[in-house]
Amino acid sequence: MSHAGLVEDMDALVRALQDSIVGGLEGADGGARFGSDAWERPGGGGGVARVLADGAVFEKAGVNVSRVEGALSPALQAKMPGEGPEFAAVGLSLVLHPRSPMVPTAHANVRLLVRGEKAWFGGGADLTPNYLFEEDARHFHRTWKAVCDRYDPAWHPRFKEACDAYFFLRHRAEHRGVGGIFFEDLGGDPRRELAFVSEVGRAFLPAYLPIVERRRALPWGERERAWQEIRRGRYVEFNLLYDRGTVFGLETGGRTESILMSLPPRVRWAYDHRPEPGSEEARLLDAVRHPRNWL
Amino acid sequence: MSHAGLVEDMDALVRALQDSIVGGLEGADGGARFGSDAWERPGGGGGVARVLADGAVFEKAGVNVSRVEGALSPALQAKMPGEGPEFAAVGLSLVLHPRSPMVPTAHANVRLLVRGEKAWFGGGADLTPNYLFEEDARHFHRTWKAVCDRYDPAWHPRFKEACDAYFFLRHRAEHRGVGGIFFEDLGGDPRRELAFVSEVGRAFLPAYLPIVERRRALPWGERERAWQEIRRGRYVEFNLLYDRGTVFGLETGGRTESILMSLPPRVRWAYDHRPEPGSEEARLLDAVRHPRNWL
Repeated sequence: MSHAGLVEDMDALVRALQDSIVGGLEGADGGARFGSDAWERPGGGGGVARVLADGAVFEKAGVNVSRVEGALSPALQAKMPGEGPEFAAVGLSLVLHPRSPMVPTAHANVRLLVRGEKAWFGGGADLTPNYLFEEDARHFHRTWKAVCDRYDPAWHPRFKEACDAYFFLRHRAEHRGVGGIFFEDLGGDPRRELAFVSEVGRAFLPAYLPIVERRRALPWGERERAWQEIRRGRYVEFNLLYDRGTVFGLETGGRTESILMSLPPRVRWAYDHRPEPGSEEARLLDAVRHPRNWL
Repeated sequence: MSHAGLVEDMDALVRALQDSIVGGLEGADGGARFGSDAWERPGGGGGVARVLADGAVFEKAGVNVSRVEGALSPALQAKMPGEGPEFAAVGLSLVLHPRSPMVPTAHANVRLLVRGEKAWFGGGADLTPNYLFEEDARHFHRTWKAVCDRYDPAWHPRFKEACDAYFFLRHRAEHRGVGGIFFEDLGGDPRRELAFVSEVGRAFLPAYLPIVERRRALPWGERERAWQEIRRGRYVEFNLLYDRGTVFGLETGGRTESILMSLPPRVRWAYDHRPEPGSEEARLLDAVRHPRNWL
């Protein structure tokens, strides 16, 4: 396989990122620790799932890395770009479900896919608040713009738009949250792109933790908790109906528990729930229905 | 369209079934009443969603009817059997999520699809317990066997097996519950099949309510509730990942709230949850992993 060195370097990168992100999140949580589950894939490869449950800040948090190598089935060969059966995929994926409804849910991932002569990097980060704090959305988007601009000023607007387009629940006409960045198949110099996804990974904590610090002590009660759990239902709907990583991962025999660690810990579905017009809940709904330029 | 009379008669049937099933469930619940939401589909047709929330027995229950008529898009024409763009679909679908973890979740539906000269009936009923009571599974399966046997002794074994095959979560290697019956495209005399689905609809309450009566007063606590909510997570996974009615309905612009009324009211996802060997929870898991002949 070509790009063997690139795969090794990406593997080392995601493992280092996993350690530093887990450390940063444990520090922010101040209480609970992440467990560590190493697993192997029968067809080749494996991963490490690091999951925290019932923390002071995080009700459930997962930071997973995986590296999968082997031969694609003929059905998957037909579906995927590139040539030949041999492939490798290396990635890090994290999903954080805070306990407080005032602290937004966050997701980020970086990945490298290699098939034959071709190597694609992809990834992104997006923020899913239950209550809208405009300064949080601005801070999150500005962080990603700064990272992108160091590589190509055309990237941030493109990746921001791709994020809004990807995290969209057609059946609700709602986006998953207030967006972020999303990129696939950058298609340039692989070494430069490895550097870029490394910076994306390192920028996650500075993009997210200041928001956690600002919101973690805000008061909330049963009303906010109910709304949070209803919004988490949308998160589940997106991940199981639309998310390619989830659906593709489960279809191709990925490790179910690692893939579904993204699902929130406690969720509600209420029939035809509609927030009161003019309420904070209605304001959030308006924000996820109409993506904005947060810069 | 041919079969116009059949469509009318199925429409009358599902409305009558909706009334009688709602009445029977309200009687069993003893407290809450079903609301009623009539809706119209822009392309033609509509339905009535009847949903109960926070009852004494049922935490969430939905009994919906819909009738959709119109022209299929070229993409859907290619996917579906039959000829021509014109189609009609009439159906009833119900999902009951009891409050007590000791009372099983239940689902049933009947439907008629007409396209050109062709008319297909389909439907079924299945039981999803959180704790295994063998006599409940036997009673449920025996009721359906009796209904099927009045039409064709070959039907019950076929429909029972089809039910086990359909309600299967590949990524968990688990069936949704202890099964029941599932049938599609009976392919015989439409009038006789209309009579059959009518009997299926009328047999639902006698198949299910005796189970409710036996289990509703059993004691339960936090442990059983947690297990119920985890099992409900599997229900969500099945409906959003695999259920054709749900996925197809959302894709074709069906009414989201009616389709997703099937989702349980309160749900949990716990990372890599495994019941203690030898526990009642492990017994249930064994039953959903290995379908049995309950007769």
